[in-house]
Amino acid sequence: MPPPGPSPQWRRPRLSNKQDVRWLAAAASLAERARPLSRPNPAVGAVIVGDGIVIGRGWTQPGGRPHAEAMALEQAGVKARGATLYVTLEPCAHLSDRGPACADLIATSGLARVVAGVEDPDERTAGAGLDRLRTAGIDATCADDGACRESLTGFLMRKTLDRPHVTLKLAMSLDGCIATASGESQWITGPEARAHAHRERARVDAILVGGGTFRADAPRLDVRLPGLEARNPARLALTGEDLPDGWLSLIDPQEIRALEPVQYLLVEGGAGAAASFLEADLVDKLMIYRAPVLLGPGLQAIGDLGLESLADAHGRWRHVDRRELGRDTLDIYQRSREAKGWIV
Amino acid sequence: MPPPGPSPQWRRPRLSNKQDVRWLAAAASLAERARPLSRPNPAVGAVIVGDGIVIGRGWTQPGGRPHAEAMALEQAGVKARGATLYVTLEPCAHLSDRGPACADLIATSGLARVVAGVEDPDERTAGAGLDRLRTAGIDATCADDGACRESLTGFLMRKTLDRPHVTLKLAMSLDGCIATASGESQWITGPEARAHAHRERARVDAILVGGGTFRADAPRLDVRLPGLEARNPARLALTGEDLPDGWLSLIDPQEIRALEPVQYLLVEGGAGAAASFLEADLVDKLMIYRAPVLLGPGLQAIGDLGLESLADAHGRWRHVDRRELGRDTLDIYQRSREAKGWIV
Repeated sequence: MPPPGPSPQWRRPRLSNKQDVRWLAAAASLAERARPLSRPNPAVGAVIVGDGIVIGRGWTQPGGRPHAEAMALEQAGVKARGATLYVTLEPCAHLSDRGPACADLIATSGLARVVAGVEDPDERTAGAGLDRLRTAGIDATCADDGACRESLTGFLMRKTLDRPHVTLKLAMSLDGCIATASGESQWITGPEARAHAHRERARVDAILVGGGTFRADAPRLDVRLPGLEARNPARLALTGEDLPDGWLSLIDPQEIRALEPVQYLLVEGGAGAAASFLEADLVDKLMIYRAPVLLGPGLQAIGDLGLESLADAHGRWRHVDRRELGRDTLDIYQRSREAKGWIV
Repeated sequence: MPPPGPSPQWRRPRLSNKQDVRWLAAAASLAERARPLSRPNPAVGAVIVGDGIVIGRGWTQPGGRPHAEAMALEQAGVKARGATLYVTLEPCAHLSDRGPACADLIATSGLARVVAGVEDPDERTAGAGLDRLRTAGIDATCADDGACRESLTGFLMRKTLDRPHVTLKLAMSLDGCIATASGESQWITGPEARAHAHRERARVDAILVGGGTFRADAPRLDVRLPGLEARNPARLALTGEDLPDGWLSLIDPQEIRALEPVQYLLVEGGAGAAASFLEADLVDKLMIYRAPVLLGPGLQAIGDLGLESLADAHGRWRHVDRRELGRDTLDIYQRSREAKGWIV
């Protein structure tokens, strides 16, 4: 039997050509460098391409300025004339006392073409950035690109759902335990998995643990990786008790909505905090580190979810990625919310 | 920095050349067709290669006869003259009232060369098969091949450890539950994973469940896949109670030693039976089917292992394979027993 032809979804007309998709992916990759220090600004990435060659690269600098476009334009210099700018987010159109609007900067740069990955949901821009470029005679389009949306998830959720993107991280045994029956939990996973988890800490604005974990482990929740010490996220605990300096207390998971300018929140357990966030449907991504150990009836990873039947548990999570980390594995699952394709 | 040179293990002189390794892998792949109906005989595969072309293929037929070599020789006919036979297990040297010894058959076949993957541990052969071929002027060698050892694991364990190879299969949620708190377990995994599990049933000689699972689910433990209905394995329950016709009762996991001619045993749970086999260190392979659901504090997959500390749990399992099955994943782990490299 010959291989089946392309499925209908592949036949849909595409908004972007292959080359554009590739350069936008490169811009999204650069945007990763801005996480999380760009806050309160979105972590944006930009590349300027002239004659098929990258002549400028930029990403939002710590504190939010300079913007990615400004950095890339400065790098390109006069070579920008006639070139194309690929930027993950629509260039800003609003004036700020912190610098010129990128749309104005680009309008006078000599660039011939601008491809933005995502339209800026900020009401001060919201299409006005691209409009201003078109007025200036630049071929400006929005590609509505998946990789760019993904790289801006935290910012987009802040702007449209008024809450941060939430990742629940769990480190467990093969049989789903986060500690032995006697409470021993250091360490279930190996050094590679723990280093990877520290890297994840360096990518978020805040970390939260439950009251039980706070009392039992007194976790530092800092980034213990060379060169990333400045990335230490804000520390939160889901508890009503008094907390030491440098910690913030939350009584209810819904309070994360008030945590401006947090775009990315990492919930690190324990079982009670995990269950609270899951029951409130405030978890967008699961990162499960699994060690090749069996612990028998140990401490279960997730507390009471108030599940009424098995059917209610299905359809919520989709396996999207995995990797080997030393002897351990990492599996990543994404909350299935069909209507909001940009939540990743 | 240039990539590092080959590690010392790659510098060791190799017993087999690349071509031999490939043909032995092909023979091991054919051997898979003999599982499990060849019992009490090992599931052996054979290919005969003349001028780089396969001229005969064979695998142990149901009930154990004809042997793989006989089948391949019959296919090759007169073309066998001057050709090479690749066979996963050393050809048998002992006479049987069920047919001639393969070594005798080969000695008069005109084959120029024989490469066996593994020496037969059966004391009636144990090198005598290859010796007889050499006496007949055939270039006969044993490659001590990994793929062949793996394909003969159940047989080799029977002969040397006097017990079958044991696989523990678990179907669980991401948080390690095999049922909800209220006991609901049908179904956690989807149809693809369940079909795969039925295929695994078709590869073993016997399946065991614990007494609790037997009473709660009254499982049929049959192979519900078209064309494989004849592969239904023997049914065992780890319980002292009276069982219906067609079931065999075991009181202690160690009793699997007496289960001649079982080479491959599949333990399908529940938590108590899993713990009993793990505690007795009688599990060689874990197959964990995981569905992307979270069940909160449900029924844990593994009962009490009597674990004293976390350190005792480490170093036992090695992740060796994984695959996607619909929305679910299958992870395979192997018991790390350094001294017995052929246990897979």
